[in-house]
Amino acid sequence: MTAIDSALSMADSARTRFLDELKAFLRIPSVSTESRYAAEVRRCAEFVAADLQRMGMERVAILPTAGHPCVYAEWLGAPGRPTVLVYGHYDVQPVDPENLWTSPPFEPTERDGYLYARGASDDKGQVHAHLKAAEAYLASSGRLPINLKFIIEGEEEIGSEHLPALIRAERTRLQADVVVISDGAMFARGLPAICYGLRGLAYWQIDLVGPRSDLHSGVYGGAVANPIEVLAHLLAALKDDRGRIQVPGFYDDVREISAEERARIARLPFDEEAFRRELGVAELFGEEGYSTLERRWVRPTLEINGIVGGFTGEGSKTVLPSRAAAKLSSRLVPDQDPERIGDLVEAYLRRLCPPTVSLTFTRLAAAQPVVTPLDHPAVRAAERALEHGFGRSPVYIREGGTIPVVATFAAELGIPSVLVGFGLNDDHLHAPDERFLLENYFGGIRTLIWLWAELGGLA
Amino acid sequence: MTAIDSALSMADSARTRFLDELKAFLRIPSVSTESRYAAEVRRCAEFVAADLQRMGMERVAILPTAGHPCVYAEWLGAPGRPTVLVYGHYDVQPVDPENLWTSPPFEPTERDGYLYARGASDDKGQVHAHLKAAEAYLASSGRLPINLKFIIEGEEEIGSEHLPALIRAERTRLQADVVVISDGAMFARGLPAICYGLRGLAYWQIDLVGPRSDLHSGVYGGAVANPIEVLAHLLAALKDDRGRIQVPGFYDDVREISAEERARIARLPFDEEAFRRELGVAELFGEEGYSTLERRWVRPTLEINGIVGGFTGEGSKTVLPSRAAAKLSSRLVPDQDPERIGDLVEAYLRRLCPPTVSLTFTRLAAAQPVVTPLDHPAVRAAERALEHGFGRSPVYIREGGTIPVVATFAAELGIPSVLVGFGLNDDHLHAPDERFLLENYFGGIRTLIWLWAELGGLA
Repeated sequence: MTAIDSALSMADSARTRFLDELKAFLRIPSVSTESRYAAEVRRCAEFVAADLQRMGMERVAILPTAGHPCVYAEWLGAPGRPTVLVYGHYDVQPVDPENLWTSPPFEPTERDGYLYARGASDDKGQVHAHLKAAEAYLASSGRLPINLKFIIEGEEEIGSEHLPALIRAERTRLQADVVVISDGAMFARGLPAICYGLRGLAYWQIDLVGPRSDLHSGVYGGAVANPIEVLAHLLAALKDDRGRIQVPGFYDDVREISAEERARIARLPFDEEAFRRELGVAELFGEEGYSTLERRWVRPTLEINGIVGGFTGEGSKTVLPSRAAAKLSSRLVPDQDPERIGDLVEAYLRRLCPPTVSLTFTRLAAAQPVVTPLDHPAVRAAERALEHGFGRSPVYIREGGTIPVVATFAAELGIPSVLVGFGLNDDHLHAPDERFLLENYFGGIRTLIWLWAELGGLA
Repeated sequence: MTAIDSALSMADSARTRFLDELKAFLRIPSVSTESRYAAEVRRCAEFVAADLQRMGMERVAILPTAGHPCVYAEWLGAPGRPTVLVYGHYDVQPVDPENLWTSPPFEPTERDGYLYARGASDDKGQVHAHLKAAEAYLASSGRLPINLKFIIEGEEEIGSEHLPALIRAERTRLQADVVVISDGAMFARGLPAICYGLRGLAYWQIDLVGPRSDLHSGVYGGAVANPIEVLAHLLAALKDDRGRIQVPGFYDDVREISAEERARIARLPFDEEAFRRELGVAELFGEEGYSTLERRWVRPTLEINGIVGGFTGEGSKTVLPSRAAAKLSSRLVPDQDPERIGDLVEAYLRRLCPPTVSLTFTRLAAAQPVVTPLDHPAVRAAERALEHGFGRSPVYIREGGTIPVVATFAAELGIPSVLVGFGLNDDHLHAPDERFLLENYFGGIRTLIWLWAELGGLA
């Protein structure tokens, strides 16, 4: 029996235990954006480190940052063979509105072949597939076919603020030939994909203050500017009714995609009507002149992520509020820069904001967009590994989401990333009832066993 | 000593006890809009009824409604003299945001001559002045100079939904020559006022639903309508940048005021710069072509009272929300009708709302605007009583707020209302740190002692 067969066989026989361990991982509420969960985030890092230690990885360490820590581990027993750096994140999004979850977000529950929990797909389930693929080799052969390094962070959901500094400080230890990341989706159930492009992110909060305290809307109404009304005017001015962003200069640095790439995207088996039904809307909406996939992958956005002001409880309160706030963010495409886009949005809002209210503009997160070259040998290896793992050739896709670290690896370590996601697009990421298809979890483990063999020249 | 002097003397000597009783009244959290306070609202009605019983009023009763009850009492021992119906309300607004209160909202606290508490000015403090003026007569002379009826309700802050039915059902018992109401403000500290006009109210909630669940703003952003963005566009379309409401037909039924009334308003000693500073804004804002007092008193409004959608917590959550909601209301002037205005606003919003989201429009409260004739004998009596109570002739004013029952008394009982308010415009009604000037509380008691004598032909 080859090392591949031994590892595949070990992984197959350990399915029940692997799944139990994944559930334990998901039970830890590692919500990185809420300070009350800080101890749980730490406990989650310790969980990952302990598992890496137990399976035989070396130099396992919890690396402190100015925020939540990173988990590092390596196995360098294959001299002359390539070195792969696996990146993932153990932190998760908040769970609100919690009342919309069918089962509790931190009590992993199996239904219809899916595992439901916050972080099931984004990204604990996919990180766990990597841990278990390595364990399958180490437990069956005592070695891996390549040199392997793990860096699993705890701040991806809040913009990976402290990771770039850590990568700079640890550039020697982290050096590798390629980064492999599983923090995304296949094209469809049964159709694996290799992702070569990610959008960047710039996230802001705007706060408007009008009168110094809340006022009676009868006594004062009509005679003083209402901050919610001003906010509505500012937000409405961000986009026209055909979905075109109105911030001057916003599109200046957008690299238009080639006719070849547009044609390749158009050939993908994407069912727009099924997508519309899945979202439960009467009509889709987006920037005029682009297809739905183009709107999601290759065009920038400007979304309002949250808004609050005045009375929002039960019944009617006739208040003229003192303040209103909104959270906004842009998904960016090459060659847009999050800082420059922030400057443009802030300048536009300040120009539109009347003197009747005061405006505060706060920058909360930023990440560069990235496109990965398709001719790297690791990309071809991933294509063959996915054929083995899922029985079907992958398509090449881009993704609308953001993995800020991909740009950092390119800039700091000079290495490309190969993105092999095992999620699905309807995994309810960042939303109630997040889930992970169990056949993708196990298919992911098989794929990664093949990928390390392909990269090691053994397959 | 005349009956007036005896009553004034009694009220003066009982100041400490009266104030202690007012504080006990204010300690009861009678928030009518929040169902969790229902028992406290009931307890507050019982508090008022017990006080009326104790002071010697007759046929004291807690009258049930389909919502919170009304307190009734009468004293009809002056045959041949006029009958006055005193209306007030014992319910109060919610207290949120509670963290902005200097002292707890239901722990009345004296500072700088003011009494701070939710309901201090609106309307418990003013109702209490009425109770104590009656008590002063009954305790000192055993009788009142007029026939007096009290109707003190518990749903004013939620639109007095069940009061009209009660007034219709009790029209015989409530019959009177005039209604006297103290639920408003003097023109300024030391300058009393008689109010002859009130704005009406129409209050609505709009709910927008887009995708069936919250979505990841990276995976889906750009390809589906964002309900907060749609809401911002709808709200921004309600008014132009000169404060003019854009709902077609909104101004059709507005009765323009006379040149004489405009001139009278313009002569009032209103300090716009002080008003601006009090609000803490760099500039005032309102409908072009009207003064600040006209904007507050004789022009209709359309205000956003609250808005909520998406992620509003700490940090950044990259969500594309499923839903967004806003609370809106209009202050109305004669001859606008709240139902018709609601129809116009709903039709306008439905016309503007794109098919990418679904819109629900809910009507939460309605009240007619009202203007009271100035030539009623009770108005002249009130002018003289205010001269006695505060040592200065009152001005005639209108108010921007709403007392829904005034229109009902006119329609159901055929009697006018005289509005004699003892609050001040900076009492922070409906807001944190609501307060009532103690000299106005005691001046109010003196004024009402004089008013009953004037109306009884004794002064």
